[in-house]
Amino acid sequence: MRDAYHEELDSLTGKLVEMTRLVRSAISRATTALLDADLPLAESVISRDEEVNALFAEIETSIFDLMARQQPVAVDLRMVITALRMGTDLERMGDLAVHVAKVARLRHPDSAIPPEIRSTILEMGQIAETLVTKAGSCVASRDVDAAMELDEDDDAMDRLHRRLFRNILAKDWQHGVEPAIDITLIGRYYERYADHAVRVARDVVYLVTGARPS
Amino acid sequence: MRDAYHEELDSLTGKLVEMTRLVRSAISRATTALLDADLPLAESVISRDEEVNALFAEIETSIFDLMARQQPVAVDLRMVITALRMGTDLERMGDLAVHVAKVARLRHPDSAIPPEIRSTILEMGQIAETLVTKAGSCVASRDVDAAMELDEDDDAMDRLHRRLFRNILAKDWQHGVEPAIDITLIGRYYERYADHAVRVARDVVYLVTGARPS
Repeated sequence: MRDAYHEELDSLTGKLVEMTRLVRSAISRATTALLDADLPLAESVISRDEEVNALFAEIETSIFDLMARQQPVAVDLRMVITALRMGTDLERMGDLAVHVAKVARLRHPDSAIPPEIRSTILEMGQIAETLVTKAGSCVASRDVDAAMELDEDDDAMDRLHRRLFRNILAKDWQHGVEPAIDITLIGRYYERYADHAVRVARDVVYLVTGARPS
Repeated sequence: MRDAYHEELDSLTGKLVEMTRLVRSAISRATTALLDADLPLAESVISRDEEVNALFAEIETSIFDLMARQQPVAVDLRMVITALRMGTDLERMGDLAVHVAKVARLRHPDSAIPPEIRSTILEMGQIAETLVTKAGSCVASRDVDAAMELDEDDDAMDRLHRRLFRNILAKDWQHGVEPAIDITLIGRYYERYADHAVRVARDVVYLVTGARPS
């Protein structure tokens, strides 16, 4: 049987996994809101970010309590430190989903996304969801090999990001400057979201091995 | 006389202040490189980011040693935890200066910045430098009142950021989509840089008071 101390550490893991679930849902709804110009869905992403922030605040408080009372060492110390970092990254991912949703809201009832860009945005959203879901599994399983695999999905995100710029800069781009700005920012939000998911997975590697992946 | 433990904590503060100095220099050079289309200066920002990363790695190692050996409590525990967060923010600010410098490099020998935008970019660079310098002073002095003042400078940054968008979206904008994309990204980099500086200052408030500023 595990003692109270280790149960607290486990509960920290559970909360981080829950955060990955919330921010996956957020980016999923944000992508749909963007593609469908769905205002209520965009509003739901914006208002429900509070849940992500509250969960992170809970995690921070637990970590503080744990450190002050238990003075963890070795892998347990790495657990609380990485939990703090993972929480910071996941909280930021929630913010980035909100940024995407806000563009959808700003352009409603129009869609911010011209037809020829839709499939790229859809794919970026899908990869974002894949990355955060994999990151969540790694946090739960502490599977180092699985954590290293996220880099490949992140490369796919970078390719989509470059494709997005090629689309905006194509000679036949006829939507002018404003949609180009929207899409530049949206592309950046997805790219950052993916980057934070990769950081979460890398922190799993650090947690387990004590060494940073190169 | 201070003991070895407290000297280690002080040295952590010193290293964080040094990080603020390095990333202030980085954004200053990046802004000039951008405005003057100065390739060697842009290259210097990109190559010297390694110094920022190395210093952060040193800070991370010290923190780990400290936590494992000394098991700090109360304000000392807040010090090591906030140091980790401040270091993360400052490291990111270095990356953002690199992003600015890379736009300068990409457009060289042209300037990425059309004449009518120059003064806004210059001001964004100046506010970024002011913010990080103030953040560095707050880290050194642990002055909570001074730390709260950064919000005002950050508001000024947000106003400049909005002005930038108004410029790009103005009817008489004649530079087309590519410069609009560059400027959208550059504006975002400065805005994020400022945001991270504000976070560093807020962590000073937390360090001293144990409570997050609202």
